[in-house]
Amino acid sequence: MADLEIDVVVVGAGPAGENVVDRVVRAGLTCAVVEKHLAGGECSYYACIPSKALLRPMDLIGEVSRVPGLELGPVDASAVLARRDEAISNLDDGGQVEWINKLPATLLRGNGRLTGEREVTVTGADGTVTVVRARHAVVLATGSVPVVPPIEGLAEAKPWFSRDATTVRKVPGRLAVLGGGVVACEMAQALHSLGANETTLIVRGGQLLGRVEPFAGELLAEAFSKSGINVRLNIEAERVERAADGTVTVHLSDGSIVEADELLVATGRRPATKDLGLDVVGLDGKGPVEVDDSMRVPGSEWLYAVGDINGRNLLTHMGKYQARVCGDVIAARAKGESEDRSALRDTGDGYGAPQVVFTDPQVSAVGRTETAARDEGFDVRVVEYDMANVSGAYLLGDGYKGRAKAVVDERRKVLLGVTFAGPGVAELVHAATIAVTAEVPLDKLWHAVPSFPTVSEIWLRLLEEYGL
Amino acid sequence: MADLEIDVVVVGAGPAGENVVDRVVRAGLTCAVVEKHLAGGECSYYACIPSKALLRPMDLIGEVSRVPGLELGPVDASAVLARRDEAISNLDDGGQVEWINKLPATLLRGNGRLTGEREVTVTGADGTVTVVRARHAVVLATGSVPVVPPIEGLAEAKPWFSRDATTVRKVPGRLAVLGGGVVACEMAQALHSLGANETTLIVRGGQLLGRVEPFAGELLAEAFSKSGINVRLNIEAERVERAADGTVTVHLSDGSIVEADELLVATGRRPATKDLGLDVVGLDGKGPVEVDDSMRVPGSEWLYAVGDINGRNLLTHMGKYQARVCGDVIAARAKGESEDRSALRDTGDGYGAPQVVFTDPQVSAVGRTETAARDEGFDVRVVEYDMANVSGAYLLGDGYKGRAKAVVDERRKVLLGVTFAGPGVAELVHAATIAVTAEVPLDKLWHAVPSFPTVSEIWLRLLEEYGL
Repeated sequence: MADLEIDVVVVGAGPAGENVVDRVVRAGLTCAVVEKHLAGGECSYYACIPSKALLRPMDLIGEVSRVPGLELGPVDASAVLARRDEAISNLDDGGQVEWINKLPATLLRGNGRLTGEREVTVTGADGTVTVVRARHAVVLATGSVPVVPPIEGLAEAKPWFSRDATTVRKVPGRLAVLGGGVVACEMAQALHSLGANETTLIVRGGQLLGRVEPFAGELLAEAFSKSGINVRLNIEAERVERAADGTVTVHLSDGSIVEADELLVATGRRPATKDLGLDVVGLDGKGPVEVDDSMRVPGSEWLYAVGDINGRNLLTHMGKYQARVCGDVIAARAKGESEDRSALRDTGDGYGAPQVVFTDPQVSAVGRTETAARDEGFDVRVVEYDMANVSGAYLLGDGYKGRAKAVVDERRKVLLGVTFAGPGVAELVHAATIAVTAEVPLDKLWHAVPSFPTVSEIWLRLLEEYGL
Repeated sequence: MADLEIDVVVVGAGPAGENVVDRVVRAGLTCAVVEKHLAGGECSYYACIPSKALLRPMDLIGEVSRVPGLELGPVDASAVLARRDEAISNLDDGGQVEWINKLPATLLRGNGRLTGEREVTVTGADGTVTVVRARHAVVLATGSVPVVPPIEGLAEAKPWFSRDATTVRKVPGRLAVLGGGVVACEMAQALHSLGANETTLIVRGGQLLGRVEPFAGELLAEAFSKSGINVRLNIEAERVERAADGTVTVHLSDGSIVEADELLVATGRRPATKDLGLDVVGLDGKGPVEVDDSMRVPGSEWLYAVGDINGRNLLTHMGKYQARVCGDVIAARAKGESEDRSALRDTGDGYGAPQVVFTDPQVSAVGRTETAARDEGFDVRVVEYDMANVSGAYLLGDGYKGRAKAVVDERRKVLLGVTFAGPGVAELVHAATIAVTAEVPLDKLWHAVPSFPTVSEIWLRLLEEYGL
């Protein structure tokens, strides 16, 4: 017999899990949420929030450096770390717990594991076991964990993972970074700006930010190089060792070495499926827990998965989006309501999720890259524009460097993808997200006039380049 | 007989006029453009461009002040003015002239005046007269001029108008500003940041930025007051005098006075119709030159008017937009092409033009205000959200203050208007411009997921507030 019977059980109280809880409770269902670490999840304490708190000063240092008449003193790294600590609530999840309690929902601390149909067994840190039975649904929202590449000596060298970098207390003077993706680039630049004067990225692929349009990775690599961050592309770490004095030595595939005080491993993340009891529903836990567009696991009508664990798009905002869909679906099904509402299906993920990289220059993109669109067989036309020629960008500062690219579906005359790279492009992408997701035809976009002199005038330039 | 016969004659080489020239020449027509002052127009030398160059440092001073760990030295006003001079090409229009020549089009320096059907007579500064005959169209694009309110002693006191403020060489220590609109607010704040320590706005109406949602004007007034700019609302200037020592005294309707070194008059602009020969087509030149949605003046099939002169929306970007429509219409009609293309009609102005005010906080808005929407009989529902609660805004700096408001047409479930006020909202509005202009239904906007943690997440919050 269960210790607790409730409408919905959510395993994982990160942003995705919390959004499911919020939606089902608002719809009148009861809900318990299981969390083994901190309510609020990776994003709030160890990922998006602290990284952006660390990156914001660097962002402004760049902006100010381009505007004559202003001069900044040296950055006070301790003040930046203190604001980061405030942003992550000093790793105290009291505020989140209060929010869950007030919904109201039930927070169960411990490791949640499927132990039967609609059944989750929670094992607390002290060994207490609580069996929870869900009347309607169990939602898996355990997120992801860093991939540890199989490199000789890596584990023994006690490398940093993203959590160590985002919660850094003492910035290493020499930093080596394995990887060239978002976490690698953001943290390399943030720590470099805070005192990691010798920073080296070791990248297996041929470009930074391998999943966005190549020009964006190139612009970023240029900026890295200009600011004194070493970028080693097309190279692999073969062996790692840490000496008694703490120095980490990374032996590379070309025979060279990189020495550093710390080595940050940022080579991707994989769904956190370990110890979840997936065998109960016949899954092996290798790879993501695949779901349909209602976020339900095929074959188990009571089981759902949202956020990183389902592998659709490992991005906080997409996890939260999936969670809203999922929560609404569970509520509709519990009440026997019609499912004929667009909010009850995940259509957003399919267009290609928006993403912002908070480096300097920033990179923001949504939808498909040119290559992806061609690979999928679209009739593609591409337009690009040098953002330095947009008056609004020039007015932001001297030597503005940026570029935009739009991928057009020639058959339907809609945008398949848009990419921006340049200072301050983070907020440009939502316009593109609306255009891509709502499939707004180009000849309607033509009448959406960007305000002068904003950087958004890039929209006009892209459409003019297209021939409108 | 004409001195020159050409396909199209454009009177006024500001941004609107230049865009007409560009479009008709690209379509294969020949074109002459008449300019009595500087090719590039008010915007490039005396309005948007210099004002934003002056405002950008202030913007960054505000941003930096909210981020612990960074400290700015005092602003070097001379460097800011130097960058402004560079931005306005030191009032030299050589670059613009070169652009016109290269199109190619013909630039005629002088005052252009209608003197007959399809006929413009250009009188140069040296008195030379050139009669130009247009085969297809004449386009009026002379812009607007400042309104001079009828206040006793004003003219004698030699007040500043916007041009004097934007091209300022010596920032007055004491500045009085008549007006509370965009120019008044932007220039008051810019000059205050550059040394006008005693700055007072004298505003007839009850709020700053009288044409946007009241909350935006209130947020701005709060910021003005906090930074030491005096705002006097609901008051009128009755008499102005300038003493021998240069001090200007403004006598107000409540009997008080404001003393200043300079008085900036920013009480609006009116269409520049003077000396245009509008009597030739039976117009009296009082008020704007009204046009249909193809930008043509009813009753004169060869006459068009774009930009401020037609009174639709006195905004550079809308003037340029109208110019693109106009140029394309003229080309289509000259070639006898079908007019069944949406690009050949101005639909953008009707939705309510987007506008950005580059103050701190910034204000950006598109579409209708709540009041305007109700007055027009829409079935209105309004949602508002405190932007300080958006993670992306918090990460920009401590004490972020901002607010957003969306006006929804309940019948069609589309946005009629969106207003943002807060630091850095300039680039948020284009997403709203697309949503409003393309009438994207709310249930489609729901799937356009804002990236975390951007300020654009305000979109999610507004939709949640709405009940999605």
